[in-house]
Amino acid sequence: MKTPVTVLGLGAMGTALARAFLAADHPTTVWNRTPGRSPELDTLGATRATTAAEAIAASPLVVVCLLVDATVRSTLDGLDLTGKTVANLTNGTPAQARDTATWAAKAGAAYLDGGIMAVPAMIGGPAAFIFYSGAPDAFERHQADLAAMARPEYVGSDPGLAALHDIALLSAMYGMFGGAQHALALAGSEKVSAVRFTEDFLLPWLTAMLGSLPRIAKDLDEGPEPGAAGSNLGMQAAAYDNLIDTSVGQGVDPALLAPMGELLRKAVAAGHSDEDLAALIPLLRAGG
Amino acid sequence: MKTPVTVLGLGAMGTALARAFLAADHPTTVWNRTPGRSPELDTLGATRATTAAEAIAASPLVVVCLLVDATVRSTLDGLDLTGKTVANLTNGTPAQARDTATWAAKAGAAYLDGGIMAVPAMIGGPAAFIFYSGAPDAFERHQADLAAMARPEYVGSDPGLAALHDIALLSAMYGMFGGAQHALALAGSEKVSAVRFTEDFLLPWLTAMLGSLPRIAKDLDEGPEPGAAGSNLGMQAAAYDNLIDTSVGQGVDPALLAPMGELLRKAVAAGHSDEDLAALIPLLRAGG
Repeated sequence: MKTPVTVLGLGAMGTALARAFLAADHPTTVWNRTPGRSPELDTLGATRATTAAEAIAASPLVVVCLLVDATVRSTLDGLDLTGKTVANLTNGTPAQARDTATWAAKAGAAYLDGGIMAVPAMIGGPAAFIFYSGAPDAFERHQADLAAMARPEYVGSDPGLAALHDIALLSAMYGMFGGAQHALALAGSEKVSAVRFTEDFLLPWLTAMLGSLPRIAKDLDEGPEPGAAGSNLGMQAAAYDNLIDTSVGQGVDPALLAPMGELLRKAVAAGHSDEDLAALIPLLRAGG
Repeated sequence: MKTPVTVLGLGAMGTALARAFLAADHPTTVWNRTPGRSPELDTLGATRATTAAEAIAASPLVVVCLLVDATVRSTLDGLDLTGKTVANLTNGTPAQARDTATWAAKAGAAYLDGGIMAVPAMIGGPAAFIFYSGAPDAFERHQADLAAMARPEYVGSDPGLAALHDIALLSAMYGMFGGAQHALALAGSEKVSAVRFTEDFLLPWLTAMLGSLPRIAKDLDEGPEPGAAGSNLGMQAAAYDNLIDTSVGQGVDPALLAPMGELLRKAVAAGHSDEDLAALIPLLRAGG
């Protein structure tokens, strides 16, 4: 028999996680504060617990997927977690993950914090993955069980690291989307078709530009190669005004672009004119 | 014999353009305000003109690549451009391109404005391309000649469209780089290797997320499919605070992320909670 699992929280994501466990033949107990949520889980064979305590008692692996971090503790507080592995997939920050880990250790649980890199529809599919950090032995023990939801990626014993990786990738995604949205707003200002612009230019261009990231990362880890800057920050800062001016001229709010212009100016003022994009990253750090 | 071409301006980019013409066996005349720039062009067979007028007289196709837009007119003003095709690849805005096109028409030239999507080292190689807009017959006539520098992409007779496309793609690129830089700063705040983070997670993740762009574009052109929102703006706005809080907690300046948070809040306030990312784009337009 596969490991019995419990899923606490049946929002869209919790429901998707429970379905994935059921699809992988795990005996699956579910609980939600509001009873009767996601009735399709009953048809699929889920056991519905009436209290969180009953749900937790049913399985060695307890997956928590609530709306916000504050609900996690208010839900689990005072319950017996001895010998359980708690995999908390609720959205949160590294600081919250570390706090919950400390609290869970006191409550007798092995704690894993997780960051889900997928929307609910992707759960159980090939593209989804989940970052985990925290108790290495608990991850080892349940890795195969956790794989029923999405590919597990363990990133370290510091329980804050899963949220850190999660939030770093979301930051990168929103940056990319913000740039693309600004580009589409500019294209739209001259009635250029968004679909044609995206297929012919935006997508191939961004795909090509992604190819610069490994070198930026290498510069960051090892220091820049002297003289290797493809397009130095001084020239980029000077040319950046065209982006802002064009946006304003086309009636497009330059708000999404403005902070990068300020960062380029800051880099030039700090003497990094002859360096490349990697030189901007330390400037984002405190005191940078 | 191939079409004789003239290149005005021998900065890093102008020099690369002249080299590409020489490599493709075009008789190539070059001129630069400061004489003697890029002496390697002489060895490669370039003819050096002592004045801009002499340079222009030498060829039917005149490629202009100066530092800034203001220099283009001050260089060409008063010279005889009758019957010439001027391809102006100097960085500029759509408004500047339209002004220069009007001026060039009065001076008797067929005018193409161009936006170079490459750094100098990429010129003549397979990944570089150049947007062109303006006189369609001039583009038709010189398309094969222009291809010596980089793949030509003609985007319309409005001379401002090349700069618009150029600047839209640069905006998208800087958004993507800004997001990636923020992500790398977060990873670095916990001493995660930038190279490993980039190869294992950042690059595959952004590559996967690029796959959302065609649907965003389709929503924008055709209106959203009802109920198709993968992750609605209301949930995204609520979760976005974690990105800011985590950045601050890790000592990383949230400046690059902040405007997207404001845009999400603006979208929710305007009643777009149940819509998807495409709904943000009209909000970037004037009065949006």
